[in-house]
Amino acid sequence: MEEEEVSVVENKKVILKKYVDGIPTETDMEVKLGETIGLKAPKGSSCFIVKNLYLSCDPYMRGRMRDFHGSYLPPFVPGQRMEGFGVAKVIDSDDSNYKPGDIICGITGWEEYSLLHSSNELRKIQLDDDDIPLSYHLGLLGMAGFTAYAGFYEICSPKKGECVFVSAASGAVGQLVGQLAKLHGCYVVGSAGSNQKVDLLKNKLGFDEAFNYKEETDLDAALKRYFPEGISIYFDNVGGSMLDAALLNMKVRGRIALCGMVSLQSLSSSSQGINNLYNAIPKRVRLEGFLQSDYLHVFPQFLQHVKGYYKDGKIVYIEDMCEGLELAPAALAGLFSGKNVGKQVVCVAKE
Amino acid sequence: MEEEEVSVVENKKVILKKYVDGIPTETDMEVKLGETIGLKAPKGSSCFIVKNLYLSCDPYMRGRMRDFHGSYLPPFVPGQRMEGFGVAKVIDSDDSNYKPGDIICGITGWEEYSLLHSSNELRKIQLDDDDIPLSYHLGLLGMAGFTAYAGFYEICSPKKGECVFVSAASGAVGQLVGQLAKLHGCYVVGSAGSNQKVDLLKNKLGFDEAFNYKEETDLDAALKRYFPEGISIYFDNVGGSMLDAALLNMKVRGRIALCGMVSLQSLSSSSQGINNLYNAIPKRVRLEGFLQSDYLHVFPQFLQHVKGYYKDGKIVYIEDMCEGLELAPAALAGLFSGKNVGKQVVCVAKE
Repeated sequence: MEEEEVSVVENKKVILKKYVDGIPTETDMEVKLGETIGLKAPKGSSCFIVKNLYLSCDPYMRGRMRDFHGSYLPPFVPGQRMEGFGVAKVIDSDDSNYKPGDIICGITGWEEYSLLHSSNELRKIQLDDDDIPLSYHLGLLGMAGFTAYAGFYEICSPKKGECVFVSAASGAVGQLVGQLAKLHGCYVVGSAGSNQKVDLLKNKLGFDEAFNYKEETDLDAALKRYFPEGISIYFDNVGGSMLDAALLNMKVRGRIALCGMVSLQSLSSSSQGINNLYNAIPKRVRLEGFLQSDYLHVFPQFLQHVKGYYKDGKIVYIEDMCEGLELAPAALAGLFSGKNVGKQVVCVAKE
Repeated sequence: MEEEEVSVVENKKVILKKYVDGIPTETDMEVKLGETIGLKAPKGSSCFIVKNLYLSCDPYMRGRMRDFHGSYLPPFVPGQRMEGFGVAKVIDSDDSNYKPGDIICGITGWEEYSLLHSSNELRKIQLDDDDIPLSYHLGLLGMAGFTAYAGFYEICSPKKGECVFVSAASGAVGQLVGQLAKLHGCYVVGSAGSNQKVDLLKNKLGFDEAFNYKEETDLDAALKRYFPEGISIYFDNVGGSMLDAALLNMKVRGRIALCGMVSLQSLSSSSQGINNLYNAIPKRVRLEGFLQSDYLHVFPQFLQHVKGYYKDGKIVYIEDMCEGLELAPAALAGLFSGKNVGKQVVCVAKE
């Protein structure tokens, strides 16, 4: 039997130190050095080794940092490397479907190199000549973009001319919801947490109006200013007091897509709660929680449509890219204080 | 011109004294004596005079006792007689569609005699030989029953074998929801506020299980006891902490029909609010507010089905009848403390 020489390299990782109670902070995670990995997929394993290029920071990951096992995804294991959506390059493979050089997108480790199995939710990225940045497969063309697409079309049942409100509107999901709503012929208003983001919404992302919720003392009054005749569709990314204010301003038969509740109120246990749900009765409002993963049958259609819009210059996408795995903990924690401007991505390696 | 002799009689009324802030009490209303009415419909008025027989006490009426004009029904006018659903007998008529002796059901005054116009939402009751008590047209075959029917079939999309939870389950709406769910092949659990009501639910109304929420220290634990695998459908008549507990116990793709929020928490402004709405996202739960009046196109079908079930002995209906207009204020106020057992009706006159 011939002995193969296996190249062994250091494999920097991000680990979860311990379960998190409230809002995740940078120090809940740790960049761990000194571990190594062999860059050869074990024979008979049907696995493959990837070099991670881009990692996605997503609010849902907070759910995996808690000691709660009843959700749709299991928690991370304290002391072990975290995982999330990423774009990676195949280095070596024992799976005939994946060859060295292939670019894949799916759940990978928060580390430089990962040993993956095709049972992970993976898809190969076709590198056509369309000049779409690889990292966009985590945002515009990834889970965030698909969340916007599935939520807007499948949950909100939009009609031309309707009045759409989007919170966290410059975020990974919100920015595409607003642009799809504009393309659909809707009037679109977004809220965000800084004047820089408001400016992007109005001048780069094409929202009709936008406001900085931190400068509003009365969210109900703010919504009445932008929606004097009420909101047809509220795409809710934040929960908390913004959802409560929106409930006071829905039109009859309005729809609320519950997409994420990243607001501090929603995350903290001292929350005041939602007080205006009663209004859903006289206004016949429908609130619906959803996960993009229930709509994967429309994913090919999503890719085709949104790629088309992007290539035709009909939509743009804003990313917040940080360079280096060392910055991943701060980048993930930053989501919960709204530090990111656009979709938060970590570049581990460019190729 | 021949002068007609018009019989003039005293017309006892219930008036709203002033707008109500919190929970309505008996003393917010007053029985007013001394006013009179002529029992002749004015010529050319297209009106008719009715003698009111049964009046319906409904939780939605609280909304009309407040100084709030943005809802789907205008507030009552302080100092003037209240109104609500009732069954009445036509005494005299200037409208060729209504003849003396006709029995009508619809919005009428909280008084002994009312001058009505057919623009009011009225329907004539066909007195066939079916032995259905007249007052049932306010409950089982009236707005309450139709709310149950429309809410269960149109909002909850029930499937055979699903697990259904009903709050305020012995009330005017809840008791029919539970019985329809049983006829549909569902497992049905109800909550109510006294052991007498729990007994009725289990032994008269055919619920699989029932519990007294006032004897539960932990509503989440109570629901986990009765729904170890989760709730498919929650028909919510109370809001507040019961809705919050149900949100922790919904199955994936569960549905919540928001029908009424009569709980003290929902009614008081010091409410803690709903804290568990977040769960609607991973569980993909749909919450939907509705009004029966949006579904009047299925009213004929409702009457046919529910009359049929009743005549065949497949459903029963529990009424709480008080005798005399004088007791109407206490009867209406009693709804908000759960004093009524079954549908609350006031008998003004038997014929």
